[in-house]
Amino acid sequence: MAVSSSLFSCTMQMEVFAPKISKCPKDFVYCHSKISYMEPSYLKSTCYPISRFLCINNLSKCDKVKKNWQRDGIRCFSEGQKFQLDDVIEAQQFDRDILNAIFEVAQDMEKIERNSPESQILKGYLMATLFYEPSTRTRLSFESAMRRLGGEVLTTENAREFSSAAKGETLEDTIRTVEGYSDLIVLRHFESGAARRAAAIAGIPIVNAGDGPGQHPSQALLDVYTIEREIGKLDGIKVGLVGDLANGRTVRSLAYLLAKYKDVKIYFVSPELDDIKDYLTSKGVDWEESYDLVEVASKCDVVYQTRIQKERFGERLDLYEKARGKFIVNQNILNAMQKHAVIMHPLPRLDEITVDVDADPRAAYFRQAKYGLYIRMALLKLLLVGW
Amino acid sequence: MAVSSSLFSCTMQMEVFAPKISKCPKDFVYCHSKISYMEPSYLKSTCYPISRFLCINNLSKCDKVKKNWQRDGIRCFSEGQKFQLDDVIEAQQFDRDILNAIFEVAQDMEKIERNSPESQILKGYLMATLFYEPSTRTRLSFESAMRRLGGEVLTTENAREFSSAAKGETLEDTIRTVEGYSDLIVLRHFESGAARRAAAIAGIPIVNAGDGPGQHPSQALLDVYTIEREIGKLDGIKVGLVGDLANGRTVRSLAYLLAKYKDVKIYFVSPELDDIKDYLTSKGVDWEESYDLVEVASKCDVVYQTRIQKERFGERLDLYEKARGKFIVNQNILNAMQKHAVIMHPLPRLDEITVDVDADPRAAYFRQAKYGLYIRMALLKLLLVGW
Amino acid sequence: MAVSSSLFSCTMQMEVFAPKISKCPKDFVYCHSKISYMEPSYLKSTCYPISRFLCINNLSKCDKVKKNWQRDGIRCFSEGQKFQLDDVIEAQQFDRDILNAIFEVAQDMEKIERNSPESQILKGYLMATLFYEPSTRTRLSFESAMRRLGGEVLTTENAREFSSAAKGETLEDTIRTVEGYSDLIVLRHFESGAARRAAAIAGIPIVNAGDGPGQHPSQALLDVYTIEREIGKLDGIKVGLVGDLANGRTVRSLAYLLAKYKDVKIYFVSPELDDIKDYLTSKGVDWEESYDLVEVASKCDVVYQTRIQKERFGERLDLYEKARGKFIVNQNILNAMQKHAVIMHPLPRLDEITVDVDADPRAAYFRQAKYGLYIRMALLKLLLVGW
Repeated sequence: MAVSSSLFSCTMQMEVFAPKISKCPKDFVYCHSKISYMEPSYLKSTCYPISRFLCINNLSKCDKVKKNWQRDGIRCFSEGQKFQLDDVIEAQQFDRDILNAIFEVAQDMEKIERNSPESQILKGYLMATLFYEPSTRTRLSFESAMRRLGGEVLTTENAREFSSAAKGETLEDTIRTVEGYSDLIVLRHFESGAARRAAAIAGIPIVNAGDGPGQHPSQALLDVYTIEREIGKLDGIKVGLVGDLANGRTVRSLAYLLAKYKDVKIYFVSPELDDIKDYLTSKGVDWEESYDLVEVASKCDVVYQTRIQKERFGERLDLYEKARGKFIVNQNILNAMQKHAVIMHPLPRLDEITVDVDADPRAAYFRQAKYGLYIRMALLKLLLVGW
Repeated sequence: MAVSSSLFSCTMQMEVFAPKISKCPKDFVYCHSKISYMEPSYLKSTCYPISRFLCINNLSKCDKVKKNWQRDGIRCFSEGQKFQLDDVIEAQQFDRDILNAIFEVAQDMEKIERNSPESQILKGYLMATLFYEPSTRTRLSFESAMRRLGGEVLTTENAREFSSAAKGETLEDTIRTVEGYSDLIVLRHFESGAARRAAAIAGIPIVNAGDGPGQHPSQALLDVYTIEREIGKLDGIKVGLVGDLANGRTVRSLAYLLAKYKDVKIYFVSPELDDIKDYLTSKGVDWEESYDLVEVASKCDVVYQTRIQKERFGERLDLYEKARGKFIVNQNILNAMQKHAVIMHPLPRLDEITVDVDADPRAAYFRQAKYGLYIRMALLKLLLVGW
Repeated sequence: MAVSSSLFSCTMQMEVFAPKISKCPKDFVYCHSKISYMEPSYLKSTCYPISRFLCINNLSKCDKVKKNWQRDGIRCFSEGQKFQLDDVIEAQQFDRDILNAIFEVAQDMEKIERNSPESQILKGYLMATLFYEPSTRTRLSFESAMRRLGGEVLTTENAREFSSAAKGETLEDTIRTVEGYSDLIVLRHFESGAARRAAAIAGIPIVNAGDGPGQHPSQALLDVYTIEREIGKLDGIKVGLVGDLANGRTVRSLAYLLAKYKDVKIYFVSPELDDIKDYLTSKGVDWEESYDLVEVASKCDVVYQTRIQKERFGERLDLYEKARGKFIVNQNILNAMQKHAVIMHPLPRLDEITVDVDADPRAAYFRQAKYGLYIRMALLKLLLVGW
């Protein structure tokens, strides 16, 4: 029933393809090449801008349409179709199309109203937050995301107790127990590769919420999403990456994902990070090193500041103090920045951004935390109920 | 639609003002001066006693009624109207009218039944308990309150991790992050004034659940509410405040709020607490010092016992032991007390009330903890959805 | 209304008693002697095998039926009837009939589907997990159970804070506070007998989730339930109890419950545990000691392996290492075991079962954890809303 009406819709779309662009009808919107159609039942009356990624109901039935699109290099995601990824483990899992599609879902999440039917799409699902090291910010963000979609949460902030020295249970055994109690596990671990090991054994989705010096993919996604939402585009942007880049997994993942977009220019305001520079060069991404934060700030769309992580300097406190004072975002930097540009920061911040910057509308770091909520809502929705 | 019918109701009330007192009809009840009308949709068939504070639907439309009331010094709270307070930070925010109104709402909370529509009035709302020091009792009380009203909870018992020495995030930054994840923050902090700082930056309601030696306003409210519910009045009561009064914020806040009522007499069974005595004198409250707990107990409506807080004596354990043994509520005190009087205690208790007192119906301290639940339900309801 | 139709159903059942066995109609199933009828509204179309325990709607009305059954030694539990136990404190509370009835409810729990009406039977109920020592596995299992039935949870992992040295509150006082906030308390405590003390004071159900070296009854129940589900029977089974039996409360409780079934044979592959052997002898249970794990494994339906608890050896690490290496379940043991037999383990395991055993279908220990979820769902359901 739903299928046949959807099939009809698709066919109809084909017939009136071009005219729909100018009219932007209520039920369908036309989206630019690389992009597909959408008829999301709960967004029927919304008119989407061109070049946004949209999904279509029961697309699998619309073979003729699909073939045409595929010929043009368009990838299609059907509403209700299974998410391509079983788990979210690392930034490398995401290509440009999937990123766009996730951002589209995240933007739908921004519009969800309290007690609307969409606020209940994960009702009956149970997420376990299995944190082997505390990260209250990340944990609260995931738990809020789950609850905003009507799902329930099991919290474990001291998951190490599961595998304490005395008891010595393996991560794999813990995962096999917890998967019996929940529908999805958000894992924070102190060892690189832990999330991948968990995913290998688990029969339910695993989301990596940071594994030691390794990956933290939802942070990388929210950074890119913030840029898209704040600047309005990802192709052709100029990004200044500032601070303690050698030690930051955040910045590595961000640079990795930015390399998927066209004509991106990256300025490194930091002396280290050789491996990522080699990677960018190999991908044809234009990058430049600089020690002049004012000059970089004047050119960029995004100034991405990071925290100097004292804990990673060990006992070399002298190096820490030196690095810390080097590049501070303050009123001087704000004055140099363009009007449309924004300052981002993964938080928490110490004094690498002065507090008087907060009031400027270009200070995007608290909005960035909020975008993280929407990205996590999108990921949970996609992993549990699909597109 | 709802508005016009409500307007009609109001006008009608005026017409039949006096007769309604004697009949106590199902839809409306008349309340004494300083008190207004109410037509709470979910309590339609309940008959309220005179001199209880009630609210009225869409009062803003009933200008004629309102003007008459205001001329008589009646303050009006409309159902659905925004709560006067954006945050709950300190006892000083509450005047007598608002206290009465909150107690009225708390009493409605006592009547809420499992799975009734009222048990869902905070459905879709998310409360974060941001506790920088553990206080399981207070945290559970707030979380239970939220859940009893259908709301959801994000728990953070180790919020210090947000601002650990290594990371050093300010309280303000943490609040700006957490407000992105929730609709209301219950904050427990080790520094006096922390709640006020949080409220200054937050765009969502902040509830102070204790900030160091400073305020703990929901405790003060529940103490006064317990007296009203147990004794049946607040004007004209006699209260004995016993124990470690110099160190207790609980007793200070209680004395502060009691000063708002008429003909209250306070007996201090403790040698210190000079500042609050000066305050009471300035407010015209009658107070007396005594070292004879038996005599005081025989006169009072309420014997409010407090815990000797060992942790506040530092290394002066001799002083602690001396203070601890001084004034104990036991069978002797019970024998001296009047039949209608009650014993209160903020809990936890050590041996300042002997266990054999628990079975006496005048032992009100566990009921007091339960009244705290209702007060917190009322505060959450008022801050999130208004009167 | 429901009553009269149910009465009719009962009477009808009597009339057509024998024929129903062969037909197995949709609404009713016949169950063997010692067993009663059932018409569970939400399982109407299921056909149950003979000799399973079932309940009947409003059985109290069916006096004639009931009398006949009681004459035959059949015990009857009506749907909606209050659970016989106010609290779950120790394995000794359960007789064979109640165990069977609980297992029946647990099996219903296995069939509950997401967002079905049965997934909401504890909606509006609030469970507090009051854990004086961490036990993440047990806590998550109970919290998952509560949430899978639509109930809500208050979590306290550091309940010791309630009664810290400085504050010194008694367990009894804490219970009287927490019972004001919740509808059921799951208590984990470090002192034997704590759960019994809590139950003595509480007006709401207490579930013992382990009290020191004492009891852990839900673990004992889930062990027996696992055997019934995996082997299909309890009478006549052969069970090998392997490992650190002297120190394990798990194995003691299991042996205690197994003694309630007929023709059970127990093999102890461990030199100690004299008290339980005396108990089994007094109950007429056949048992045998052995040091040959391969031979025992070849005879048993169930090989129940346990963890050598290092923490219980204190400083005698030499004894720990010796005990640890003694009896390991590996491929050799698997090869000796019968096809239908299973390996169980209370988890966490160290190296007492090698990882390569996990892939064998006879490795039942992770399924056992899942059965624990269903047992806990059943207990919560029974304590809060009855049969």
